[in-house]
Amino acid sequence: MASPNEPKTTAAGSRAVGLTREAIVVAALATMDRDGIDAFSMRRLAAELGVTVQALYWHFENKDALCLAVVERARNELAAVPLGRGTPARRLEQHLRALRSHWRALPSAMALGRRFPPSAAGAFVDQGVALVEEIGFGPDEAIAKYRALVWTVLGFVFIEQGVTESVHHHPLDGSGRRYEVTVDDGTVGATSVVDTEFLFDDVLRMALTGLAAAAP
Amino acid sequence: MASPNEPKTTAAGSRAVGLTREAIVVAALATMDRDGIDAFSMRRLAAELGVTVQALYWHFENKDALCLAVVERARNELAAVPLGRGTPARRLEQHLRALRSHWRALPSAMALGRRFPPSAAGAFVDQGVALVEEIGFGPDEAIAKYRALVWTVLGFVFIEQGVTESVHHHPLDGSGRRYEVTVDDGTVGATSVVDTEFLFDDVLRMALTGLAAAAP
Repeated sequence: MASPNEPKTTAAGSRAVGLTREAIVVAALATMDRDGIDAFSMRRLAAELGVTVQALYWHFENKDALCLAVVERARNELAAVPLGRGTPARRLEQHLRALRSHWRALPSAMALGRRFPPSAAGAFVDQGVALVEEIGFGPDEAIAKYRALVWTVLGFVFIEQGVTESVHHHPLDGSGRRYEVTVDDGTVGATSVVDTEFLFDDVLRMALTGLAAAAP
Repeated sequence: MASPNEPKTTAAGSRAVGLTREAIVVAALATMDRDGIDAFSMRRLAAELGVTVQALYWHFENKDALCLAVVERARNELAAVPLGRGTPARRLEQHLRALRSHWRALPSAMALGRRFPPSAAGAFVDQGVALVEEIGFGPDEAIAKYRALVWTVLGFVFIEQGVTESVHHHPLDGSGRRYEVTVDDGTVGATSVVDTEFLFDDVLRMALTGLAAAAP
């Protein structure tokens, strides 16, 4: 298949005029958010954009390449966040809350996470690592600790998203944070309430307290 | 569609002789592990089992119901684990490592997590909550803290599984724990090494240290 780096002589119209990589990625994410990632296909996206499927393949070698670009775009949109003047620990907390909010607002990109794990990069990561260093860790240690924090937060968002789409968690109100979950453990069904905001506070507090305790 | 609770008069042979719910769930998981969850369908599973698709629908109302049963079976197989005689914190660590190992060995059930979040239940949960109580928390607080720990561990496993299947993480050796990841942040590609065992140690240590620090 043709890739942008090795354009081939193809049938007239393979490269749709004005169709950019960027426009395709934006349209792909919008389509996924509307119809779900399972319904997504190159053919449907082409129809949506009013171009031939070959025009999409001119920009992306295959569907995987496009999915990867969707997740990378989502990640690269995450810029360093304004953090105010608190302690390093307090600013790191704000930073990690921003990480959760960012990915939480991108359900399709998160749902692609099974093969295209979400991550953080660029200026956002630089900011986070610098905060861990301020807490007292050396440069290499700071990178390792920061990665552990990012995995904790992104893992949380993933489970949270699963709860939102889950067939056995039922929203208790319109808040989007409280769910009733019925667990059938083989003998009796037990019902309990999950409050994802409360849970995230706990997860984050444990991780940050643990980090502070490990500072040299 | 016919469900086990409201059997209908259907065409002869709808209920295949000797076909149990259990056998269907076991076969579904094996098929998913072999072919991936995207390729899974009731039709293919029926062909695999040599029964009609109606015979499956006699036991499961739809594919969602079967997927839920697969995840529930995976969860219910997790029994209380032998923990030795260490401190409560040390035993809780072993317990949470067992949780990771259990779900990690079930890639298909984890991959279903987007709509059927993995969890823990029954005797396993009782064991975990009791350990958090031993550390010093009251009953309600212990349940909340234990849930935060479970989400931290399961979220980690989810991201870890994504890395295993990822198109942009490349295994560095046969260990299944070390990956080279290339992040394209829009300007330059940066390559770094992720060691999932090391990372899990960090995630768990932070959470458990944080938990201990929060004990009354």
